[in-house]
Amino acid sequence: MAKIADKYFKVDPWSVVEEGFDPERNRVSESIFALGNEYMGVRGYPEEGYGGDTLLGSYFNGLYEEMPVQGHYRGTIRSLRFMVNAVDWLYTRITVDGEQLDLAQSRFSGFRRVLDFRKGTVQRELVWHAKDGKELAICFERLVSMTRSHVGAQRMTITPLNFSGTVQIRSGLDFNTLHEDQGRGFWSVVRREQAGSGAAMLGRTANTGNRLYSSFTLHTQGAEVVRSEPIEQEHLAATELTLHVEQGQAAVVDKVAVNAAFVTCAEPDAAVWDEGQALLGQTAEASYDELSHEQAAYWEEIWRTSDIRIEGDPENQQGIRFCIFQMYQTYHGDNPGFNIGAKGLTGEAYRGLAFWDTETYCLPFYLFNNPKAAKSLLEFRYRSLEHAKQRAREVDCEGAFYPIATIDGTESCDLWQHSNLQLHVGTAVAYGLWHYDRIVSDKAFLYEKGVEMLVEISRFYATRGQWGQKSGQYGYFGVMGPDEFQLMVNNNCYINLMAKKLFEYTRSVLEEMKAEAPAALKAVSAKTGLRDEELENWAQLAENMKIPYDEETGIYEEHDGFFDMPHIDIHSIPVTEFPLYSHWSYDRLYRYDMIKQPDVLMFMFLYNSEYTTEAKRANYEYYEPRCIHESSLSPSIHSILAAEIGRHEEAYNFFEFATRLDLDNYNRNTREGLHTTSIAAAWMNIVYGFGGLRSDGEGLALAPSIPQAWDEYSFNMTYQGSVLEIKADQHRVRVRVTEGDSVAIRIYGENAEIGMAGVEVPMPKTTVKAGS
Amino acid sequence: MAKIADKYFKVDPWSVVEEGFDPERNRVSESIFALGNEYMGVRGYPEEGYGGDTLLGSYFNGLYEEMPVQGHYRGTIRSLRFMVNAVDWLYTRITVDGEQLDLAQSRFSGFRRVLDFRKGTVQRELVWHAKDGKELAICFERLVSMTRSHVGAQRMTITPLNFSGTVQIRSGLDFNTLHEDQGRGFWSVVRREQAGSGAAMLGRTANTGNRLYSSFTLHTQGAEVVRSEPIEQEHLAATELTLHVEQGQAAVVDKVAVNAAFVTCAEPDAAVWDEGQALLGQTAEASYDELSHEQAAYWEEIWRTSDIRIEGDPENQQGIRFCIFQMYQTYHGDNPGFNIGAKGLTGEAYRGLAFWDTETYCLPFYLFNNPKAAKSLLEFRYRSLEHAKQRAREVDCEGAFYPIATIDGTESCDLWQHSNLQLHVGTAVAYGLWHYDRIVSDKAFLYEKGVEMLVEISRFYATRGQWGQKSGQYGYFGVMGPDEFQLMVNNNCYINLMAKKLFEYTRSVLEEMKAEAPAALKAVSAKTGLRDEELENWAQLAENMKIPYDEETGIYEEHDGFFDMPHIDIHSIPVTEFPLYSHWSYDRLYRYDMIKQPDVLMFMFLYNSEYTTEAKRANYEYYEPRCIHESSLSPSIHSILAAEIGRHEEAYNFFEFATRLDLDNYNRNTREGLHTTSIAAAWMNIVYGFGGLRSDGEGLALAPSIPQAWDEYSFNMTYQGSVLEIKADQHRVRVRVTEGDSVAIRIYGENAEIGMAGVEVPMPKTTVKAGS
Repeated sequence: MAKIADKYFKVDPWSVVEEGFDPERNRVSESIFALGNEYMGVRGYPEEGYGGDTLLGSYFNGLYEEMPVQGHYRGTIRSLRFMVNAVDWLYTRITVDGEQLDLAQSRFSGFRRVLDFRKGTVQRELVWHAKDGKELAICFERLVSMTRSHVGAQRMTITPLNFSGTVQIRSGLDFNTLHEDQGRGFWSVVRREQAGSGAAMLGRTANTGNRLYSSFTLHTQGAEVVRSEPIEQEHLAATELTLHVEQGQAAVVDKVAVNAAFVTCAEPDAAVWDEGQALLGQTAEASYDELSHEQAAYWEEIWRTSDIRIEGDPENQQGIRFCIFQMYQTYHGDNPGFNIGAKGLTGEAYRGLAFWDTETYCLPFYLFNNPKAAKSLLEFRYRSLEHAKQRAREVDCEGAFYPIATIDGTESCDLWQHSNLQLHVGTAVAYGLWHYDRIVSDKAFLYEKGVEMLVEISRFYATRGQWGQKSGQYGYFGVMGPDEFQLMVNNNCYINLMAKKLFEYTRSVLEEMKAEAPAALKAVSAKTGLRDEELENWAQLAENMKIPYDEETGIYEEHDGFFDMPHIDIHSIPVTEFPLYSHWSYDRLYRYDMIKQPDVLMFMFLYNSEYTTEAKRANYEYYEPRCIHESSLSPSIHSILAAEIGRHEEAYNFFEFATRLDLDNYNRNTREGLHTTSIAAAWMNIVYGFGGLRSDGEGLALAPSIPQAWDEYSFNMTYQGSVLEIKADQHRVRVRVTEGDSVAIRIYGENAEIGMAGVEVPMPKTTVKAGS
Repeated sequence: MAKIADKYFKVDPWSVVEEGFDPERNRVSESIFALGNEYMGVRGYPEEGYGGDTLLGSYFNGLYEEMPVQGHYRGTIRSLRFMVNAVDWLYTRITVDGEQLDLAQSRFSGFRRVLDFRKGTVQRELVWHAKDGKELAICFERLVSMTRSHVGAQRMTITPLNFSGTVQIRSGLDFNTLHEDQGRGFWSVVRREQAGSGAAMLGRTANTGNRLYSSFTLHTQGAEVVRSEPIEQEHLAATELTLHVEQGQAAVVDKVAVNAAFVTCAEPDAAVWDEGQALLGQTAEASYDELSHEQAAYWEEIWRTSDIRIEGDPENQQGIRFCIFQMYQTYHGDNPGFNIGAKGLTGEAYRGLAFWDTETYCLPFYLFNNPKAAKSLLEFRYRSLEHAKQRAREVDCEGAFYPIATIDGTESCDLWQHSNLQLHVGTAVAYGLWHYDRIVSDKAFLYEKGVEMLVEISRFYATRGQWGQKSGQYGYFGVMGPDEFQLMVNNNCYINLMAKKLFEYTRSVLEEMKAEAPAALKAVSAKTGLRDEELENWAQLAENMKIPYDEETGIYEEHDGFFDMPHIDIHSIPVTEFPLYSHWSYDRLYRYDMIKQPDVLMFMFLYNSEYTTEAKRANYEYYEPRCIHESSLSPSIHSILAAEIGRHEEAYNFFEFATRLDLDNYNRNTREGLHTTSIAAAWMNIVYGFGGLRSDGEGLALAPSIPQAWDEYSFNMTYQGSVLEIKADQHRVRVRVTEGDSVAIRIYGENAEIGMAGVEVPMPKTTVKAGS
């Protein structure tokens, strides 16, 4: 599986730079230059209107439409919900002497697009050579405010280079956006108002009645406003400014947009409108400059606590900062009720749905950078507990069955083989609760909400499982584990093991609560109707859980019969046949010992401390050669384990495209949006992989190694309220606390109390050779 | 699984009689009173127009429409073809003094609907009490000619009981028929002509461009035609007759319709039209009486060679004749290129598609009643060989992959789990060729067409299979066997065994041809590019085929791991949960040792002579209690094997609803159409079950038993050109040849030469107790 970089952007430690415009790559750039603030996101599309290939995407977290699904069978979904493309609040048109700027038609030079990690802005500049010889330097800058969730802003700077005269600017809001996947728009405008140089509209989605308030105001400097005229068109409200501009003088038009999304239908339109107007009022005094300063200050603080520095490897330095930037853009826990879609807020692919990636790949980033955000993610699951309980009933089970793909807590995967056979979101949630408990020790949350989820999830796993008739052991039949290339199997090792852990953890929390929180225990028992027999049953099930395992080789069998699956040498598959989903008959994918992504290795990563290095080595050596990494989540887990078992070269090779998966468009589908959850995996790859962080055992452990190509790297992490800085070069490792009290951790297996002074230990000899 | 009869029709040995009209049951009756002649079929709908619940269905074998399928993956179908509802050539309207007859609105009495097995007609009579007090006895009779495939006819007899006066009859053709499953009509009329009292139209389907020529002529007797007026409406052509009728005198309007279906688009409309007109010309002189006489004569001949008589059990007597009647109506091999849809030509359910039922359940009926029809069925597969080869390439295999569901030879199942995992049509075709070869010895067909199919089918099975990594044996991974309650398994015993047989048979035919038909062998080798290595490979694969089997118990394991499937006591499932497809979550169906229909027992039926009675008993005793018979094809196979292993009471119990599945609406879905292929299974149930016929071993074997409830039963069968009559009562069995030369068979294991004089042997003691 050779993945090949498509190098295009300039390498810079603090930004991504595109020089020159390539229409063929425009959609890729739109993904890379996407901005978001967890509440909303916009792709980096040319807001002035573009006649070429573009995906004009503007998304609001949790705002969805739905379409009916022709379901054949009971227990499969009937309605599929997806993140709907929403208002284009950046809508702009620029006209000079009747010619409208359009990069698909116009002549221009000096194109440059920059994403600045420290400013949190995207800038796009060019010189427009109009047909009548007029030349204008134009710069668009935009931001999506990290400090004010509802606010987006745009600054347009126009400098006539060889003339003085008139320029027409139309700027406004457009609800005519198409949802490309569905080939239609979903919005109607139910209310609108034009006021001063701005306007407001209330849009409503066709099927779900989700509503979006959107408004804008304009502020012009450096040019005379000859005329300002309101424009009303279907689903569109704008202001047309006629400006007199002077040669060599920059005319600046600032736009501040306020958006407010309403998923519930409870409130009447009038109330929703008033809420929107109130938000607009709160923002009225904010200038673009102020918003921009706030934005830079926010990012400065982020980089102070969350930066990763890599000396001697500019590409990965840029890559990992891009990843951290995207993680914060996608999610930072300021707004309750959100989750992380597989593509974040950067495209329509995966329909804006969240998967198990949230708890297994993204949560660690937040646990060690932003524990509030970590909690908020778990809160999402608690808010959707009723949906999960309903879903369990739909599949003839009890308790809570968390959906494999969701935007609002309901199942939104229309493939029964995934929605009904993939059980591993529930155990991922339980793992997330356990992990959060270990690192953050938020017992209030655990004893009230966490435990209720654990009880209901356990109930599901206690009714979905069955007893093998021959083995006499408990397990899950008719399932698909994390490895999606084994479609419908029995006793998937990962699912069985995670269920066993679930039962044990639920029981231990309930046991702990007997002593620590008897009142809370009483409350949750009453609320859930928990019975003692259930606890006994869960103990039985955990004890009798089948974990397919070959004593002789020490290899876990991914599922019953996996060892007999026909062998294929994955290196014999021609590169042209990837991705296999597109090139192989669907059924053929599922008939080999080939795996798509880690499954046995996944639980060895999650419960790392429970397995010896030897066990990890044996299983790595068996499964890695069978894995084709058709999931972008796959290489990082392999890299982390490879580093642990001393396969440093492999660890680095697997790492190679982790941080730059999208920047270098390795999978050739960045055009659809960023691989947001893979970005989280890239962070884990450095911190868990090279940093050797382990957070599943007793306390926290570090065991850094360093790729030979790097001079030095360092990362920060928040742990028990303190900020730790880990710095490693080819010779030594330094760990210190930069903020807060000293903390106890283990370094290379040795206990250490880390304070401001820090400790220094030598880097072990076996360093990583650069990938050759 | 308690199936309960819904007794409704009168029991009669030679007809089905409905007395009184029950609107709730009208759709069921429309299925029961459906007529067909393999070329076309009409449901028994009220042709005078009915405002109540009706499925006005008129079908032409092989005439199809298609709809796009939203396929997610490669190797799954993109277009689904289905038998399209076509012209209502029985279209009639009767008006008296402005009131139009409609059984949903009108007052009427004396309703009686009769299907006559000897006349091959459906008669429907009633007395209409019009609002103004006028009373008319009305009788509709219809037939679909068994001797003239394109011809259908209707006789309407109207007798004014208490008045003389005017009656208006509108009669014609209507292409406005709705395809209910799709909620739309598919026809446009591309040409029309009105001539004399009749008219002709050429209809064309919207997506596929299939065409249907339809025409009618009217002939009136016993009434004065006051006026005859052509009616042209959209998609409709009719004649409106104003008749003067005399009290007490029967006015008769006969309608002869000529229909011709054109599936190919090659010929221009004009040519197709001319063909239709020529057919109309050939029928011009045929009166209803003539057609009716021909029809009765045809059926007389059928009953002479194919009747089954049961003395002492009027319900099963009626039932089995209904079955035989339907088998001939659905298919008798006069028209090349047809197959047998799961519902024949009686409804939209199963979309008119043919499955593996054709070769495994229907073929034996034709082998022993109408060998020409048997051959024609196999010809269907030969005609569609190119489609099967194309399909094999779509799933990344070689050779020919016959579709699990088809109308024209292309795959038309839109569920990947069936279309891509169910491999057993190909081996069913091979089995059919083998069976046909054994019974009919048509070597010309075998050496030219049969062998070509065998080679291509073998190629498919040699590329779809794989080697188990642990077992070192060959087999099929990711498959669904006949038992559709084990959805995606490895080494399904049935599939593996049938593939082994396929390879062996293909090799033996090729071997035989070396001596018997070297030129034909050369031809087929050249045509298929057959290589010696392939033959060697097939030998290897057959030899190393994995047949999961437990030496200790003698039980074949349905597939790898079946013995570990969680147990469910199928009798613990509440009756209200059937059918399980409607009441259980889809994934739940597949997680037990519960089977839907015979799988291991199926191959023990097909290759009966290769298994000892002990082996059959052991496997029957294991699998029967796990089978819920959710397929209507299931009980008959169990009944046949139960009879063989001496479980006579069970044999009779399983037989109970075989012949009357539709007459008594056991599955409560006869409204959708008849269970045509189950009807074939009912025939096998008597002939293979009680008759003890075995046709898979050396020569033919009989071993009759008799249910205690029966005084006597007899059946005829054609074998090696002779007609055998088998007659059995509680004391003895008589077998004789009634036509043709003497034949050698075995009776209760003893060789016997049967001639006109016949042989008589005592009935063995263990007779069947009536089901209690």
